[in-house]
Amino acid sequence: MIPDRERAIFEAGIKLGALYHQWVGTPVSKKSAASIEKAIEQAVILQPFVEEITVRLDRSLMTENTFGYSEVCGLMFDVEIVTRVGFSYCRARLFPDDGYPLMQVMECNEIPGLSRY
Amino acid sequence: MIPDRERAIFEAGIKLGALYHQWVGTPVSKKSAASIEKAIEQAVILQPFVEEITVRLDRSLMTENTFGYSEVCGLMFDVEIVTRVGFSYCRARLFPDDGYPLMQVMECNEIPGLSRY
Amino acid sequence: MIPDRERAIFEAGIKLGALYHQWVGTPVSKKSAASIEKAIEQAVILQPFVEEITVRLDRSLMTENTFGYSEVCGLMFDVEIVTRVGFSYCRARLFPDDGYPLMQVMECNEIPGLSRY
Amino acid sequence: MIPDRERAIFEAGIKLGALYHQWVGTPVSKKSAASIEKAIEQAVILQPFVEEITVRLDRSLMTENTFGYSEVCGLMFDVEIVTRVGFSYCRARLFPDDGYPLMQVMECNEIPGLSRY
Repeated sequence: MIPDRERAIFEAGIKLGALYHQWVGTPVSKKSAASIEKAIEQAVILQPFVEEITVRLDRSLMTENTFGYSEVCGLMFDVEIVTRVGFSYCRARLFPDDGYPLMQVMECNEIPGLSRY
Repeated sequence: MIPDRERAIFEAGIKLGALYHQWVGTPVSKKSAASIEKAIEQAVILQPFVEEITVRLDRSLMTENTFGYSEVCGLMFDVEIVTRVGFSYCRARLFPDDGYPLMQVMECNEIPGLSRY
Repeated sequence: MIPDRERAIFEAGIKLGALYHQWVGTPVSKKSAASIEKAIEQAVILQPFVEEITVRLDRSLMTENTFGYSEVCGLMFDVEIVTRVGFSYCRARLFPDDGYPLMQVMECNEIPGLSRY
Repeated sequence: MIPDRERAIFEAGIKLGALYHQWVGTPVSKKSAASIEKAIEQAVILQPFVEEITVRLDRSLMTENTFGYSEVCGLMFDVEIVTRVGFSYCRARLFPDDGYPLMQVMECNEIPGLSRY
């Protein structure tokens, strides 16, 4: 069996990959960005092993096309997610890094003091 | 040139087709459905020629999987959209019809009293 | 009832809107572009009222990111679709126009000589 | 720094999550399924850290709707992916498990005998 720590990492990857491809292409503007952020957060938090999720879309990239709106693109995302499997946590991020939307594990934590009864 | 009435119909088709494929697969629950509905409405209203949009997701189809959530599927949608090109309006719907998510033009209207100067 | 001609236009809009949002974001390279084009064509041709579909992705926009690939974006598409309802045809296109991925009805045709018996 | 083994696991999660949400909803039939499988494989193999990918869509679930086609859904997928970071490999799967499309790490391997020169 894969240890909890590694499973938490795997689940964080799944969620970030899913989120990215589900939402890229959605029409967005500076005015509607908050509703998209909230919908993403509420959709992701439903999924198994997700403890926390914060989504921030970079308004400065929402340059308007001929029709006055933009589309969600990879580089707009700044997402932080915390997954948990058993007593292992993984904190991972999706953020723009040198022109590429990077996904990265930031931190893993076990809670040694906790025990199940 | 295609008349305004036909262009309004074309634009209604575009928006319904786009909406369907953008959002199908999004994790959803009865509790988060309202935030998804709102995000869809706010995304669609940004697009050119859209005058009105209302999105309703059928909660009764949100049967929970092993992990307590569901995914947006075609049959959940009840969407009504109004597009306008010039003085021509088109009202169209996406709704479940005999087990198939049907898209249909409900009504077209010209405003004959108006003129351009 | 909406006339066949207008329904063919509506259906063309649906298919272009759907295609756009289904496929934007897919990883692509000059080498794999042909397989994506073919998969899109084969997926769209399945849908009701579609008579013909050709998809061409602009290789010149497939600039490689740090990892040597690109993603399908709206401006890559040059798509031509023909829909038919009854004896009415609609030919529509999705193509880059002044930096915006434009969808446009190119032509509608009725076949007056044909009759149903 | 996260060890290569854990990064390979994270990358496998990203790819499976991305694939799932990119392709769910695509129109498909038994006849076109092979072209979709091939397009998915060719899209995924482009991404960083992917060594191998095989995609099989379950034809038995492609029940035809009124219009004679079906849509890719989560339970259709049987996907196996191998990611590699440094000398660590991760083999993971997406497959139907008790009515849920499960993603699971199957195996991780390090190659201790290899060295860089």
